[in-house]
Amino acid sequence: MKNEKPSKNWKAKIHEIIYGTHTPAGKLFDILLLVLIVYSVIIVMLESVPRFDTKHHRFLNISEWVVTILFSIEYILRVICINKPKKYVFSFFGIIDFLSTIPKYLAFFFVGSQYLTAFRALRLLRVFRILKLVRFVGESNKLINALRASRTKISVFVFFVLIISVLLGTLMYLIEGPEHGFNSIPHSVYWTIVTLTTVGYGDISPETPMGQFLATLIMIIGYGVIAVPTGIVSAEYASNLNPNKTMDEGRSCPNCSCEIKRSDADYCRKCGYKLTEDDDD
Amino acid sequence: MKNEKPSKNWKAKIHEIIYGTHTPAGKLFDILLLVLIVYSVIIVMLESVPRFDTKHHRFLNISEWVVTILFSIEYILRVICINKPKKYVFSFFGIIDFLSTIPKYLAFFFVGSQYLTAFRALRLLRVFRILKLVRFVGESNKLINALRASRTKISVFVFFVLIISVLLGTLMYLIEGPEHGFNSIPHSVYWTIVTLTTVGYGDISPETPMGQFLATLIMIIGYGVIAVPTGIVSAEYASNLNPNKTMDEGRSCPNCSCEIKRSDADYCRKCGYKLTEDDDD
Amino acid sequence: MKNEKPSKNWKAKIHEIIYGTHTPAGKLFDILLLVLIVYSVIIVMLESVPRFDTKHHRFLNISEWVVTILFSIEYILRVICINKPKKYVFSFFGIIDFLSTIPKYLAFFFVGSQYLTAFRALRLLRVFRILKLVRFVGESNKLINALRASRTKISVFVFFVLIISVLLGTLMYLIEGPEHGFNSIPHSVYWTIVTLTTVGYGDISPETPMGQFLATLIMIIGYGVIAVPTGIVSAEYASNLNPNKTMDEGRSCPNCSCEIKRSDADYCRKCGYKLTEDDDD
Amino acid sequence: MKNEKPSKNWKAKIHEIIYGTHTPAGKLFDILLLVLIVYSVIIVMLESVPRFDTKHHRFLNISEWVVTILFSIEYILRVICINKPKKYVFSFFGIIDFLSTIPKYLAFFFVGSQYLTAFRALRLLRVFRILKLVRFVGESNKLINALRASRTKISVFVFFVLIISVLLGTLMYLIEGPEHGFNSIPHSVYWTIVTLTTVGYGDISPETPMGQFLATLIMIIGYGVIAVPTGIVSAEYASNLNPNKTMDEGRSCPNCSCEIKRSDADYCRKCGYKLTEDDDD
Repeated sequence: MKNEKPSKNWKAKIHEIIYGTHTPAGKLFDILLLVLIVYSVIIVMLESVPRFDTKHHRFLNISEWVVTILFSIEYILRVICINKPKKYVFSFFGIIDFLSTIPKYLAFFFVGSQYLTAFRALRLLRVFRILKLVRFVGESNKLINALRASRTKISVFVFFVLIISVLLGTLMYLIEGPEHGFNSIPHSVYWTIVTLTTVGYGDISPETPMGQFLATLIMIIGYGVIAVPTGIVSAEYASNLNPNKTMDEGRSCPNCSCEIKRSDADYCRKCGYKLTEDDDD
Repeated sequence: MKNEKPSKNWKAKIHEIIYGTHTPAGKLFDILLLVLIVYSVIIVMLESVPRFDTKHHRFLNISEWVVTILFSIEYILRVICINKPKKYVFSFFGIIDFLSTIPKYLAFFFVGSQYLTAFRALRLLRVFRILKLVRFVGESNKLINALRASRTKISVFVFFVLIISVLLGTLMYLIEGPEHGFNSIPHSVYWTIVTLTTVGYGDISPETPMGQFLATLIMIIGYGVIAVPTGIVSAEYASNLNPNKTMDEGRSCPNCSCEIKRSDADYCRKCGYKLTEDDDD
Repeated sequence: MKNEKPSKNWKAKIHEIIYGTHTPAGKLFDILLLVLIVYSVIIVMLESVPRFDTKHHRFLNISEWVVTILFSIEYILRVICINKPKKYVFSFFGIIDFLSTIPKYLAFFFVGSQYLTAFRALRLLRVFRILKLVRFVGESNKLINALRASRTKISVFVFFVLIISVLLGTLMYLIEGPEHGFNSIPHSVYWTIVTLTTVGYGDISPETPMGQFLATLIMIIGYGVIAVPTGIVSAEYASNLNPNKTMDEGRSCPNCSCEIKRSDADYCRKCGYKLTEDDDD
Repeated sequence: MKNEKPSKNWKAKIHEIIYGTHTPAGKLFDILLLVLIVYSVIIVMLESVPRFDTKHHRFLNISEWVVTILFSIEYILRVICINKPKKYVFSFFGIIDFLSTIPKYLAFFFVGSQYLTAFRALRLLRVFRILKLVRFVGESNKLINALRASRTKISVFVFFVLIISVLLGTLMYLIEGPEHGFNSIPHSVYWTIVTLTTVGYGDISPETPMGQFLATLIMIIGYGVIAVPTGIVSAEYASNLNPNKTMDEGRSCPNCSCEIKRSDADYCRKCGYKLTEDDDD
């Protein structure tokens, strides 16, 4: 970092501001971008409220134009100042950036298309670009590690939940039938998941005693089984917190090269080789 | 594995493909079977949707025939290539395989019977046959161990929850009565479980102030008590993650009498004394 | 146990059967009593179902008489064979036993009184008498210990939840008002607890944007805060599982009498007194 | 504490009673104040129930006056007996105390104003003043520590949940649309949070198959993700329970170089070496 040349050209400077985060200008840019993204998403949300839209239509339209123009400038700068523009343009965030910029331009050609709202909502995904930089802050990093470590287990768990839901949903369909709102097996499976996850809308609810009994069973299963993912993440997270585990990874016996698992070991537990020199005299 | 004879007869080969999982052919067979099972279950589900059934009845009927024929072939091969066919036929999965094959044949005799759908839904249980092989993959194994270890505790817990539900349900029946939808004690107990597990359909809800007060109490109990199974599974799971907890209680070095904390230790980690005799020669 | 005299009188024998659990006869009695209690509770439940009651009224009436007579005999035997009958009669379970026996006799005097059902439901509490004996089986014992250890913390937690509920409920009452179903502050607090505990009946739900915003906030609080009791019980339960913690309680330094907290300590950590004699030579 | 002068003036005595907690008079004052606060809050709650208000209006009015006068006396005493009255008056609790005293006086000027109820509900916040003193009792202290330690992580988590809710809510708005009750994006986001937190009022529920499929997905996400805050708090709490985790990393005996595991150790538990210099004379 010491010997950086002062003779940077303007492209490198813009690159540092837009892509970098360790300079004051870069940080400021990230914060401004975050504000702009959040603002643009709020505009999209408010536009969908009929009462607000009819009242402040002009204001929303101007805001949308401002956001679109600023995003356009940012997109062009990103493409210009990077070394390999193609790689950026076709990357995940490159496409998101492009799609979240164009809706207002497209509105000239496809008047009133509702699907443009979807494109504009994509802007929210841009938040993750900034979060990607923040996630090294530590806390969120730990969270993501715990989630990643338990990913396979949670997938296995969700898979089991789905199989059980299909089986119990079919059973409920046979017991209650279309006359009590369980119109089809997929609909019954939907109800089973609503119940198993303890959401319980109440748009459909069992009416026969047999159906209510089975529903009770499903709830208790859901109530007990909710413990499993919690248990997994808790345990993973706790083992991340526990410094003893992480610190000793990598220490190994110089004699037999087996892993030393306890941090307070003086001798290798496999070959008896003395690990610590300090006790000699 | 080295000295396997090349002169296997065809029965042994089919046996290896159908029951085995460590040959490429065996793996391919398992994957194809999994796809077929999932496909057959989707057919059953779609058939129950009235709108879809009237439109694509022909397609569903043919699909069902294809699945039935393929399952029939598989079932016959399973019976032929095994050494003790009787044991297979009357085993749990043997019966499941049989019942999930016959519904279409039975449809000739019992026209339009709804209960055949139940038989066909049984096909989903066949997924567990394949999962049985996969569960040694590790992750799901750990999950199952944690669940098995906490089985008794969760049963005790569910038992307590049921007693509390019956008591509180009876109380709610006496407070609210049939005029507010609490028609009978079993119905009140059903409502109590709906509330205690935080599902909350809202098909019945208390209307008297006294009933609402008791409902509030039930919710807070449910909210606090949901912690118990989670705590159990978390703790069991965590102690599974941490291998040196359960096995090593009480083992100590005969030389320096310090505690041996790792079950795989051959030498004391404190004084270097050799713990295991087996390695002598 | 060896030198028990064979010349026991009948009172002692009955006492052993009714109160004891370690003889085969005592175990059999407990199981029969459990079956009778469960049966009597099912009778009470079924009697409250109008359709079932009109159909099988005669059967329910006879069953109730059988249960009442058997409970009467048991109660009389309990009083006769115990040394201090008064202490039993006025003990918690003595009163429960009495109250759960008399409803049918009282029905002669107070015809059709609904409150007798409440007395009869008390029978369920008798199950705990038998469970009291079983709870030493181990698993439920651990569960109860974990719950007892976290009792104070859960009370503190519930107390905080109640204060927050009253505050947020009052706020919701002021925002939504009686015209959207939030009739009074107690009713609003009821709604807040229904939401905070994620039960969500939907009998009342916010209709103004401001109210929905606050509801969203309450849900996220509830969602995050549900973790606290779970965390408490998990941690308590895990520390119960962990044998190191429990074993060292009570060991103290003979020199300065401070508590020795680590099981592998050779010297007192407070005064430096040598704790272990084995290392002397 | 020994040499306290007996010649305290009346201000100091009142200060000790009102602000202190370690004298019998101070404890009694705190308990009486707690009772008065709870009583005043119950009065506010009951006044909002129309049926109760019309019946007992006179009683409620007198109660309110009694509470107001007692609070006024207390407030004046607090201001008089403290050394820096200004600091108290403009402190958080000073303002709360003031605002919770005046509503009845204000009622002369602003007749029937509903917002005075809000001021009166603020009285509940005064409970925390007393709790502040109690929180050193231990249990609640641990709870607060665990919550504080996991504050950042839970904020990060809530932030992620909000982003996901906005994305999924927009998607649901596009799929279901205003014709199925999803009137606007903010309303859809509200529904998404209701579902994700497993509250599930059922005031709006998806009706198209596509919407129900996405709802199912949201529920399963919510069901799995609820584990994260629980895991965080559990782990934090557990590491609080276990005192020798956080503080002692890296401290080791200068004599035998073994790890010092307890932060309150004065001597090495392995070699008896004196660790602390302070005890020398």
